[in-house]
Amino acid sequence: MITNLEQLYFDQLRDLFSAEKQLIEALPEMATNATNDELRDAFSNHLQETRTQKDRLRQIFDRHGLNPEGEDCDAMRGLIKEAGKHITDTNPGSVRDAVLIASANRVEHYEIAAYGVAKAFAECLGYDDDVKLLHESIEEEGNADDTITRIATGGLFRSGVNEAAAR
Amino acid sequence: MITNLEQLYFDQLRDLFSAEKQLIEALPEMATNATNDELRDAFSNHLQETRTQKDRLRQIFDRHGLNPEGEDCDAMRGLIKEAGKHITDTNPGSVRDAVLIASANRVEHYEIAAYGVAKAFAECLGYDDDVKLLHESIEEEGNADDTITRIATGGLFRSGVNEAAAR
Repeated sequence: MITNLEQLYFDQLRDLFSAEKQLIEALPEMATNATNDELRDAFSNHLQETRTQKDRLRQIFDRHGLNPEGEDCDAMRGLIKEAGKHITDTNPGSVRDAVLIASANRVEHYEIAAYGVAKAFAECLGYDDDVKLLHESIEEEGNADDTITRIATGGLFRSGVNEAAAR
Repeated sequence: MITNLEQLYFDQLRDLFSAEKQLIEALPEMATNATNDELRDAFSNHLQETRTQKDRLRQIFDRHGLNPEGEDCDAMRGLIKEAGKHITDTNPGSVRDAVLIASANRVEHYEIAAYGVAKAFAECLGYDDDVKLLHESIEEEGNADDTITRIATGGLFRSGVNEAAAR
C-alpha cells in the first residue's frame, strides 16, 4: 500500500522509468519507419534525450538510495501498441509519417503530464535538486513535441507532412 | 489500409470516440473514490463535458455520413487500467486524491494531444465546421486539466491535496 506522498512520488517516478525504458525500445522502430528525413532525425535526437531522461531518473533514485525498477507503465504500453498498429495500417510515405507524429504527440503529452505531476510532488516534498532534473526533462519533452508538430503542420514558407498526406 | 489523410483523420476520430466512451465508464468510479469534495465535483463536471465531447464526435461523423464505432483505443485502456491500479494501492484520503489527479492529468494530456492532431488534420482537409467543434473540446480538456492541477497544488491562500498528502 502507498500511504504517503513520498511513496507515491517514487511510485510515479518508477512508472516514468518504465515508460522511458519502453520508449527507448520503441523509438528506433519509429525512426526506421519515418520517410521524412527531418522526422527521422527528430526521432533519433529524441532517443538520445530519452536516454538522458532515464539517466536523470536513475540519478534521483541513487540520491535517495532507492531502486528505480519494479513498475510497468501500462499507459506507455498502450501508447506504443497503438503506434505499432498504425505502422501496420499504413504504407511508407507521408500518411505513415503523419500517423507516427500523431502517436509521438500523444507520447510526449503523456510524459509532460507525468513529469509535471512528479515535479509538483517533489516541490511539495522539498526535493529541490529533483525538481531541477525533472524540470529539464519537461522542457525537453515540450521541445520535442513542438518539433514534430512543426514537421506535421509546416510553416509560413513550406508545407508539412499533413499537407503532403492530404494530396 | 489507410492510404490518405482523410481516412487517417476518421481513424483518429474513431480512436477518440472509443477513448471518450471508456472515460465515460471510468469517471464515475474516479468521482466515487475521491475524498476531496472539490475533486469529486470536478470529476462529475468532467463526466458531463466528456458526454458532450462524445456527442460532438458523433455530430462530425453524422455530417460526413460515417460511423464512429469500430476502433478500440489501447492508450486510454492503459491509462484507465493504471488509474484503477492506483485506487487499489491507496486508502481513501488525500494520498488517493493525489494519485487520482495524477491519473486524470495524464488522461487530459492524452486527449489534448489527440484532439490537437485531429484538429490539425481537419484544418488541412478544409473541414472548418469540424475544426470549431474539435477546438471546443480541446479548450474544455485544458480547463479540466487546470482545475484538477489547482486542486492538487493549491493556491496563494489555501493548501492543496498534495500538501495534505505530504503530512
